[in-house]
Amino acid sequence: MSSKIKPQTLKGFRDFLPAEKRKRDYVTQKIKKTFELFGFEPLETPTLEYSEVILGKYGKEADKMVYSFKDKGGRNLSLRYDQTVPTARVLAQYQNSLPKCFRRYQIQNVFRADKPQKGRYREFTQCDIDIFGSTSPIADAEIIACTYFAFKNIGYPKIILRINDRQTLFSSLKSFSTKTADVLSIIQTIDKLDKKDKLSVLQELIKKGLSSKNANAALAAVAGAALTPNLKQIIEQSKLLGVPNQAIEFTPNLARGLDYYTGMIFEVILPEYPLGSFGGGGRYDNLINKLSGYNIPAVGIAFGFDRMVEAADELNLIPKENTGAKVLVTIFEDPQPALAAAAVLRQKNINAEVFPAQDKIDKQLKYANRKGVNFVLMIGPDEAAKNMVTLKNMQTGKQKTITLDQATDVLAR
Amino acid sequence: MSSKIKPQTLKGFRDFLPAEKRKRDYVTQKIKKTFELFGFEPLETPTLEYSEVILGKYGKEADKMVYSFKDKGGRNLSLRYDQTVPTARVLAQYQNSLPKCFRRYQIQNVFRADKPQKGRYREFTQCDIDIFGSTSPIADAEIIACTYFAFKNIGYPKIILRINDRQTLFSSLKSFSTKTADVLSIIQTIDKLDKKDKLSVLQELIKKGLSSKNANAALAAVAGAALTPNLKQIIEQSKLLGVPNQAIEFTPNLARGLDYYTGMIFEVILPEYPLGSFGGGGRYDNLINKLSGYNIPAVGIAFGFDRMVEAADELNLIPKENTGAKVLVTIFEDPQPALAAAAVLRQKNINAEVFPAQDKIDKQLKYANRKGVNFVLMIGPDEAAKNMVTLKNMQTGKQKTITLDQATDVLAR
Repeated sequence: MSSKIKPQTLKGFRDFLPAEKRKRDYVTQKIKKTFELFGFEPLETPTLEYSEVILGKYGKEADKMVYSFKDKGGRNLSLRYDQTVPTARVLAQYQNSLPKCFRRYQIQNVFRADKPQKGRYREFTQCDIDIFGSTSPIADAEIIACTYFAFKNIGYPKIILRINDRQTLFSSLKSFSTKTADVLSIIQTIDKLDKKDKLSVLQELIKKGLSSKNANAALAAVAGAALTPNLKQIIEQSKLLGVPNQAIEFTPNLARGLDYYTGMIFEVILPEYPLGSFGGGGRYDNLINKLSGYNIPAVGIAFGFDRMVEAADELNLIPKENTGAKVLVTIFEDPQPALAAAAVLRQKNINAEVFPAQDKIDKQLKYANRKGVNFVLMIGPDEAAKNMVTLKNMQTGKQKTITLDQATDVLAR
Repeated sequence: MSSKIKPQTLKGFRDFLPAEKRKRDYVTQKIKKTFELFGFEPLETPTLEYSEVILGKYGKEADKMVYSFKDKGGRNLSLRYDQTVPTARVLAQYQNSLPKCFRRYQIQNVFRADKPQKGRYREFTQCDIDIFGSTSPIADAEIIACTYFAFKNIGYPKIILRINDRQTLFSSLKSFSTKTADVLSIIQTIDKLDKKDKLSVLQELIKKGLSSKNANAALAAVAGAALTPNLKQIIEQSKLLGVPNQAIEFTPNLARGLDYYTGMIFEVILPEYPLGSFGGGGRYDNLINKLSGYNIPAVGIAFGFDRMVEAADELNLIPKENTGAKVLVTIFEDPQPALAAAAVLRQKNINAEVFPAQDKIDKQLKYANRKGVNFVLMIGPDEAAKNMVTLKNMQTGKQKTITLDQATDVLAR
């Protein structure tokens, strides 16, 4: 070994120590359960791909953020940048073995050589659901309903789905496009209404070449836009699938940044935790064709996993019992009864840690306390002689000498 | 977009399509549950580390297999090669916030630019448990017992833990070391007794400089070695923790390849699936010190995750019901009753997929059949008029027109 490890993580990369990792695992499990309730199927793709699969798919700016390198065999490799492009590859590669309508979920880490800042990391978890192969509004509604219930089943008190149709925006704004500003460019500016005041948005439109009158008229046209028949149907069907009326907000100025959306677009807002959007998606019927050459319509959403964990934690939605072992089994000079007791507890499905050393009992109690273990089981010589155990509740400080069966009953509650 | 994706994965890298991914998730969940039953805590470290954390830690041959590159900021980065070195970094970096005895599990992918061959991949899942900070045989016994139950709870019919003590090997072989062959080198040869015949092992020992007499005597000394008091205690304590007597096999010639073991060593064998070792580990009290400069004793095991999934699958230990949706809800001209029914099923925790299009009913049935969905729910105009549903069992081909409540009862079974 040439050198000691410098204890240092790369900027923008994170260790998840047990307490944090457990929170993430809790949210992941809840999300996965809802995805499976809606029949979504798990997919995993490799961390590394041929660079030609990844590069040139997201635009020049994005290409700069892809981690790419040459391996020792001279191959150009890139790290996973998102989950959509690898899935487009999967759709092309296994077209004969995948179902015609393929609904998949994917929860994996992606890598972006972005400038690290608060809440933005270079390795982070993406969490996507998509339905490939259907143009029906039922597919849109399934995505919307699954999204709603994924949030609902974690327990966020209020969930708002802002929803719009790209086609509404297109038809409202078509007449305002100029030589210097096409409809997509106008949409991108109007998308900022959420973050900027109306005046700055107007100024940006004027800068893009709209007359002051037309800039105002464009905003008015967007604000006054009506539901398209398509969106009306999607919303109706989402409600039939159980999404409550008050959770859906038709938001005619919602544009979503990405250019590739072709129909319904939506995003998730948690009013109790106003930290922007917690996920967004929509219909993108041309992207897979552009990427893979296979004409496969699609609709989906990407969840803001890190934000979801943060909000779930701050809103106390992660159960306090979501800790490690429920009981620490202490070790006295003769460890035999303690080890046998641990075997019984585990057989009864009680998470139990055996203190892995012979140490002073108060040190073992201190260890349990510091780790936040709820109960400590002690079988000293006195208890062993009477075939009893002492169970101490670390929160109340109370302890009782009882049989192991009785202790098991308390711990199994 | 500059180019279509070439549908191709890198050699040694794998896509996991739903059926395969689901098997892996099943085994992972079973393993995790046992780890938590034993109080092990989850840990996650980044995929990328400073190269200086990773390189020079495993020897020159291993360094060649580390995926390393320079990022755009000129930093030397490496992909995760194993989970022990990053954990040594974690132990050094968070020494004040981690418990004195830290038992952690870690299930993440690692990357090795190895020659791909059957069963050997460049990205694969590692699955480790370790207890850091204790020299007590109780820690060894906890690792052994947790390993046994991790396999037992998946359901492998027969589990054998081969166990030995490096110290036994050292004392049996000390007197046979020569100028050209130290004890470790002799151990490495004797480790091959499992794969090669006795004669080739003898020849290798002779090649290494032992006289023919001494080579024979060395093998005899190893074969006749007795349990050390340490190993006796570990085995006793493992049994108290619930490991059955017949699962433990003292194997005096077991050496385990890695040089860093200092005490107990063991490996897992599944006689019904004789594919070599399904996991191996032992005590390594000096490694963390060598890596990090912190004197932290350790004992642990790495599970052969890919092999475990393969064996679990071939031995039919993964439940047949471990599939996607339990029921496909078909869509007729009026999708309303179908969508409302899907909402009810999901509320009752029944995994249900709504066919996301209006298509001929026999096409929808074909789709269900191809996907292996067990039941299909149909609400055509006739059913809707009578407020009934038709539930078809796709395995028996039988169908019944019943109420939605009755269908829910059947599906909830």
